[in-house]
Amino acid sequence: MDKVGVWLIGARGSVATTATAGAAAIKAGLAPPQGCVTESPNFPATLVPLAGLVFGGHDITETPLRKRAEQLGRAGVVPPHLPDLIAADLDAADAEIRPGHVPGDVPGDRDQAAAAARLGDDIAAFRTRHHLARVVVVNVSSTEPPAADRPEFARLADLEERLAAGDDVLPPSSLYAYAAFQAGCGYVEFTPSTGPTLPALAELAALRQVPYAGRDGKTGETLVKSALAPMFASRALRVRSWSGLNLLGGGDGATLADPAARSSKQLSKDQVVAGVFDEPVEGQTHIDFVADLGEWKTAWDHVTFEGFLGVRMALQFTWQGCDSALAAPLVLDLARLVARAHEKGRHGPLPELGYFFKNPLGGGEHALAAQYARLRAFAEELS
Amino acid sequence: MDKVGVWLIGARGSVATTATAGAAAIKAGLAPPQGCVTESPNFPATLVPLAGLVFGGHDITETPLRKRAEQLGRAGVVPPHLPDLIAADLDAADAEIRPGHVPGDVPGDRDQAAAAARLGDDIAAFRTRHHLARVVVVNVSSTEPPAADRPEFARLADLEERLAAGDDVLPPSSLYAYAAFQAGCGYVEFTPSTGPTLPALAELAALRQVPYAGRDGKTGETLVKSALAPMFASRALRVRSWSGLNLLGGGDGATLADPAARSSKQLSKDQVVAGVFDEPVEGQTHIDFVADLGEWKTAWDHVTFEGFLGVRMALQFTWQGCDSALAAPLVLDLARLVARAHEKGRHGPLPELGYFFKNPLGGGEHALAAQYARLRAFAEELS
Amino acid sequence: MDKVGVWLIGARGSVATTATAGAAAIKAGLAPPQGCVTESPNFPATLVPLAGLVFGGHDITETPLRKRAEQLGRAGVVPPHLPDLIAADLDAADAEIRPGHVPGDVPGDRDQAAAAARLGDDIAAFRTRHHLARVVVVNVSSTEPPAADRPEFARLADLEERLAAGDDVLPPSSLYAYAAFQAGCGYVEFTPSTGPTLPALAELAALRQVPYAGRDGKTGETLVKSALAPMFASRALRVRSWSGLNLLGGGDGATLADPAARSSKQLSKDQVVAGVFDEPVEGQTHIDFVADLGEWKTAWDHVTFEGFLGVRMALQFTWQGCDSALAAPLVLDLARLVARAHEKGRHGPLPELGYFFKNPLGGGEHALAAQYARLRAFAEELS
Amino acid sequence: MDKVGVWLIGARGSVATTATAGAAAIKAGLAPPQGCVTESPNFPATLVPLAGLVFGGHDITETPLRKRAEQLGRAGVVPPHLPDLIAADLDAADAEIRPGHVPGDVPGDRDQAAAAARLGDDIAAFRTRHHLARVVVVNVSSTEPPAADRPEFARLADLEERLAAGDDVLPPSSLYAYAAFQAGCGYVEFTPSTGPTLPALAELAALRQVPYAGRDGKTGETLVKSALAPMFASRALRVRSWSGLNLLGGGDGATLADPAARSSKQLSKDQVVAGVFDEPVEGQTHIDFVADLGEWKTAWDHVTFEGFLGVRMALQFTWQGCDSALAAPLVLDLARLVARAHEKGRHGPLPELGYFFKNPLGGGEHALAAQYARLRAFAEELS
Ligand SMILES: NC(=O)c1ccc[n+]([C@@H]2O[C@H](COP(=O)([O-])OP(=O)(O)OC[C@H]3O[C@@H](n4cnc5c(N)ncnc54)[C@H](O)[C@@H]3O)[C@@H](O)[C@H]2O)c1
Ligand SMILES: NC(=O)c1ccc[n+]([C@@H]2O[C@H](COP(=O)([O-])OP(=O)(O)OC[C@H]3O[C@@H](n4cnc5c(N)ncnc54)[C@H](O)[C@@H]3O)[C@@H](O)[C@H]2O)c1
Ligand SMILES: NC(=O)c1ccc[n+]([C@@H]2O[C@H](COP(=O)([O-])OP(=O)(O)OC[C@H]3O[C@@H](n4cnc5c(N)ncnc54)[C@H](O)[C@@H]3O)[C@@H](O)[C@H]2O)c1
Ligand SMILES: NC(=O)c1ccc[n+]([C@@H]2O[C@H](COP(=O)([O-])OP(=O)(O)OC[C@H]3O[C@@H](n4cnc5c(N)ncnc54)[C@H](O)[C@@H]3O)[C@@H](O)[C@H]2O)c1
Ligand code: NA
Ligand code: NA
Repeated sequence: MDKVGVWLIGARGSVATTATAGAAAIKAGLAPPQGCVTESPNFPATLVPLAGLVFGGHDITETPLRKRAEQLGRAGVVPPHLPDLIAADLDAADAEIRPGHVPGDVPGDRDQAAAAARLGDDIAAFRTRHHLARVVVVNVSSTEPPAADRPEFARLADLEERLAAGDDVLPPSSLYAYAAFQAGCGYVEFTPSTGPTLPALAELAALRQVPYAGRDGKTGETLVKSALAPMFASRALRVRSWSGLNLLGGGDGATLADPAARSSKQLSKDQVVAGVFDEPVEGQTHIDFVADLGEWKTAWDHVTFEGFLGVRMALQFTWQGCDSALAAPLVLDLARLVARAHEKGRHGPLPELGYFFKNPLGGGEHALAAQYARLRAFAEELS
Repeated sequence: MDKVGVWLIGARGSVATTATAGAAAIKAGLAPPQGCVTESPNFPATLVPLAGLVFGGHDITETPLRKRAEQLGRAGVVPPHLPDLIAADLDAADAEIRPGHVPGDVPGDRDQAAAAARLGDDIAAFRTRHHLARVVVVNVSSTEPPAADRPEFARLADLEERLAAGDDVLPPSSLYAYAAFQAGCGYVEFTPSTGPTLPALAELAALRQVPYAGRDGKTGETLVKSALAPMFASRALRVRSWSGLNLLGGGDGATLADPAARSSKQLSKDQVVAGVFDEPVEGQTHIDFVADLGEWKTAWDHVTFEGFLGVRMALQFTWQGCDSALAAPLVLDLARLVARAHEKGRHGPLPELGYFFKNPLGGGEHALAAQYARLRAFAEELS
Repeated sequence: MDKVGVWLIGARGSVATTATAGAAAIKAGLAPPQGCVTESPNFPATLVPLAGLVFGGHDITETPLRKRAEQLGRAGVVPPHLPDLIAADLDAADAEIRPGHVPGDVPGDRDQAAAAARLGDDIAAFRTRHHLARVVVVNVSSTEPPAADRPEFARLADLEERLAAGDDVLPPSSLYAYAAFQAGCGYVEFTPSTGPTLPALAELAALRQVPYAGRDGKTGETLVKSALAPMFASRALRVRSWSGLNLLGGGDGATLADPAARSSKQLSKDQVVAGVFDEPVEGQTHIDFVADLGEWKTAWDHVTFEGFLGVRMALQFTWQGCDSALAAPLVLDLARLVARAHEKGRHGPLPELGYFFKNPLGGGEHALAAQYARLRAFAEELS
Repeated sequence: MDKVGVWLIGARGSVATTATAGAAAIKAGLAPPQGCVTESPNFPATLVPLAGLVFGGHDITETPLRKRAEQLGRAGVVPPHLPDLIAADLDAADAEIRPGHVPGDVPGDRDQAAAAARLGDDIAAFRTRHHLARVVVVNVSSTEPPAADRPEFARLADLEERLAAGDDVLPPSSLYAYAAFQAGCGYVEFTPSTGPTLPALAELAALRQVPYAGRDGKTGETLVKSALAPMFASRALRVRSWSGLNLLGGGDGATLADPAARSSKQLSKDQVVAGVFDEPVEGQTHIDFVADLGEWKTAWDHVTFEGFLGVRMALQFTWQGCDSALAAPLVLDLARLVARAHEKGRHGPLPELGYFFKNPLGGGEHALAAQYARLRAFAEELS
């Protein structure tokens, strides 16, 4: 069967390293494919097997993948002895990591136009070198602040005119999406960053006939929200407030300690409650960086609701998860599904993949079970 | 439109009183129909309106319904001033309550055969007196211990032979179901008691062409379980343990303080986890009577699960609900749905109503969203 | 025995109304003195009895106390039928409420100097009218933002010079403290506002020989913190992070929805952890206004700590309290204790009352049990 | 300085192995003495230094200590690489472990009299071999069921008569205490087992002039209880119910899966609430074995209480601890304190050590802060 490339933006981050290490471990029979949605018997065999995935990517740090994996081993994200057992695969993936684009970095790319060309060439060369049928670019790099709107985002021609003029107008995630589309690759926006959501980029994806999906992988508190909110709705229980506090460490936590980046994540997290209920629901979602939690997250949610004859009741939950372990298998799922959709001729946003995201591109349901039913139907179509 | 009777076994209990009071409050425009599933726009207008329900029932206590409602007002289950405002409706329902059957009570019914005849006559007379198209019998009386199996439960002929011989072989809930079926009524087993689950009674329901549904209304901890368990399953997260502690006061709590009655409830509660996951899951569900909680319940559940590369994670939730306020609107929903199914010629168990129960009769899914989809399809068929 | 006046700043607020209503209820034998620390047998009989307290105060709203009490009855803070039973006491207290000072309110007091004189006269007239041995002024008005420092706060002479010049330099709470001291009254700062904490006011208290205590009543999350933090400390368990989210409705919650007021409260809440542990501890405390919670508060705290050989562990708690019901009896306790201290010749800050406060004036321990031991010793001295 | 022996009954269990490994790690400078109460500057320098402790003991399994330590390394109780670094110390301690007494084991000790003599000889030989000033015997073996009372437990003479007659009347823990006392050693009952609590053994301890302490190390849920219960008491808040569910894996959890052993632990856990409050408090404490939790414990407690004017409030907490990591340093603390008390001539029960126990022998307070104050005063006396 054809091999498929997984090109990770942020290839040396926690999620990327866990995904790369995990695929190697499963291929070597060292771990079962737990946490991989598409490995369940509910999914057709036409998806590329996990062993058929080849890894590469862009990053702006130089820490070798093997060292990152060892750090994750000490942090309990991957089994401590795993990195040694899959060292060859890690080194192979490491050899495929190219320098990312640092906005405003003088010795790097001259301007965004040059950067886009260079990034696209990196991906195309990877595809050729490994004789890959297709490459899916997955953004798992640090979350950006929300981007201010600009007139040239509305049309591809205007955007390309600005880029050609040497202006740096795109947020990094959108630059990566631009490069991916130009290189004829499907794209997954796993972060809450802007990525492919600009109209100009939707135009480009249509032009290049490439599919994309996003935004912001749904792995923890929001996952639970999307399972619980429909319960209240179907029971005609009126949710009055939904409040939450997320405590997390790790690289992602450190990034989100910056209020600008945090606001991207908070906007994303608020979609589910707003999407499931008709009436407005009070409450805020806080995100705190707590270095001591390392790669772990603890989230507490508190919900008040009104039932028969106005009686007030409450539900609270505490979620204790390892974000990278939750996200990594979804990266593999998404790469397989987007590659197959690409192969079958789908292009533009894939709302059928809303199951995986806090803020589904292309619209659609926020209720988890409905999203899953839609995902399974989509997988059926792809078979 | 035709009126429908709701005949409540345990008509003076918390759930029954709240259902009776709530229907009156909604009819009088004193409260919105919050908590009523079938009042949502997702349901067809062919169901009997709430104002078309007429209440009566059996109970073994004599506390007038108005007094019970006032107690529930003080306990915060119904608004404190409501009982006064709907006194006429409460008194009307109270006038329709007949003595229940107390097993082994000498001055009462001679034997179970006599009791069944008398109970059935009470229901039939209620139907005639109010010119009701149909009556649905709903068991909301105290939970019984699980019944030991007996050979005569297997066939109706054998059962009736034993009853004719003056033997008292049925648990009370099954006696009520027997009387209901004989009187040509649909039946809802809202408790975890045996009720209509004996093969002999299934035979009788088929003979009389009456529908029935059950068992054990799903209103709190188990409701949340059935929303969350499918989340783990679809994400391929392997649940390893699920433990729970339910603290509750009230009449139901007092009944469940008895280990025999409690075991019926525990068996019922364990269905969801076993029903959703393929592998066995460790853990117990405890039920404690805590008088100080009054009509309120607090339940804590703790779940451990394994994700990608074997990483261990945990979820815990605390549910703080008012059981009667959660159960009462479902009693109204079930009466409407079973009446309509009866009208449309359905008989035997109604697995399409599994959404309402911890332990759905007639088989079917335990995943809440799937149950809701099935319920909506069923309501569509009934329209 | 001599009567003692309790002059409440914010006399129509939730805490003040609950304190006034509760004292009347206990006096009338309608409720036991639960929640009153000084009613325990551990306290000497030399304190003024609850029945010897006379209530009055300042407020800037006009809602009659009886109406406020009825609102609190509907909200579940006081028994719903209580306000009727103690109507005479509520009306008597209501008749003793005088207009508070609204900063910058033109038709009111000309300037702060005039206001201070008028407020002090109100208190003195109350004392005379009721033949009170002593009056204790207790600030339970809305929390103010932290006050910026000013040079004239350092010395009484400078402060009075500015006031005499018609300058409005004091935050309202400090104006009340100034008026109280000038009127020869003890003062309790039950809020996190500036109140008596300016050096110029300490000078004045010394001059007038009056005692004072504060700051910010310790009634919920912080109370639990001060009970738990010493547990970790004595066990040599190293606390690494302490995070919290407070959800509250009510008037206090509405005030704290303003970030400026909220910062006063947050500063106050952070004292305990900083006070108990030697090393810095990570983590933030959030306060959210959730109108749906009414007079109730839910707080969640999450603590990570390190034990033997560096093993990481965690504790979390959820507190569900009714703030006014927790605060009101402490207002009575404080009035009794400060009155007695005044009688016994104590003046200046009373660090022995640190047990009652998040941020004890005059220094001292943050560990709850140590504070209680000190309180008991102090009460002994006062006997 | 003199060396002190720590003779562990259950020397190959989790607690014993962690204590032995931890002492070695601290001695080698590989870990700070976190979790050791007596290492805080609040304690006098007259206690034997951790480096002066020598380890040995009895056990009935043969798994070498190094292997047990490696298992605990994989389970996250001790750092994974520690066992290798302290292999020599582990092997030295392992060489000092002698076969424990298995009740009714034919090839082992002939009868309890013989066993007691043999066990005492083992301890005495250890003392001689290592030139130890003193040995403290600490029982950290599996919890026993509560022992039925017997007439001969009342007097030493009667007990010894029965033993001399070849009757096996003592529960194992009491046999170990008997042997320890006979060998002139202080004794710590760290489990909820009977141990030294028989009057006949108190007589023996007096005769041999040896001190002892116990029962049942206070390390988790009960520790938190003893910090929180006094908070409610001093605030005059009336606790109405206290319920708990403990989930634990490990060897201790497996032992407590047996209802008989569990009842010893439950009795012990119920002491605090009963000891702090005057009125009876509703509620049960459950203990469930959940293998998946490994060496970790999760406990949830739910408390309802009544405040001013009867308002109901609630507190809940979740404790997530590693029991062995919490217990091990206390074993070291107790050995040091009992050794020093022995040296200073103290004998009989040491109620001053109640801080360490769920069920303090010799009586005394259950409030944690009061226990700590008493412990510090005791340590002062010993200096
Ligand atoms: N883990 C989850 O559960 C989850 C869920 C949803 C979304 N996400 C998102 O996934 C992303 C990755 O999370 P993580 O925990 O791996 O974070 P991380 O901090 O460990 O990794 C981010 C990586 O991105 C790299 N990077 C930063 N800027 C870059 C640039 N301009 N070009 C290329 N690489 C760049 C960094 O060097 C780093 O290696 C975050 O945006 C996070 O919000 C994660
Ligand atoms: N409230 C919920 O959320 C919920 C959910 C599922 C099931 N249930 C079940 O509903 C039932 C009712 O709960 P409740 O809280 O109203 O209890 P309750 O104790 O308040 O009421 C039970 C009533 O049944 C009556 N009764 C007892 N034996 C009877 C007999 N032989 N014949 C006729 N009446 C009899 C009692 O007198 C009482 O009035 C219980 O079995 C409970 O387990 C309740
Ligand atoms: N309830 C608790 O547990 C608790 C604990 C610690 C501190 N506090 C503090 O106690 C205070 C009162 O809390 P509450 O819940 O009663 O609030 P509330 O909003 O119900 O009452 C505040 C009252 O103060 C009055 N007020 C506002 N400005 C005033 C002024 N300049 N002069 C006179 N009166 C004025 C308001 O009109 C209102 O009646 C708050 O500052 C709160 O932070 C409460
Ligand atoms: N860990 C804590 O926080 C804590 C707190 C209080 C009490 N305890 C008690 O400490 C004890 C040890 O706990 P653990 O987790 O180490 O248990 P564990 O099961 O790991 O170890 C118990 C050890 O005792 C040995 N043993 C059993 N019977 C024996 C006998 N007759 N003679 C000698 N050895 C025997 C076993 O072989 C095993 O090695 C338990 O009784 C537990 O209840 C532990
Ligand atoms: Na919406
Ligand atoms: Na199953």
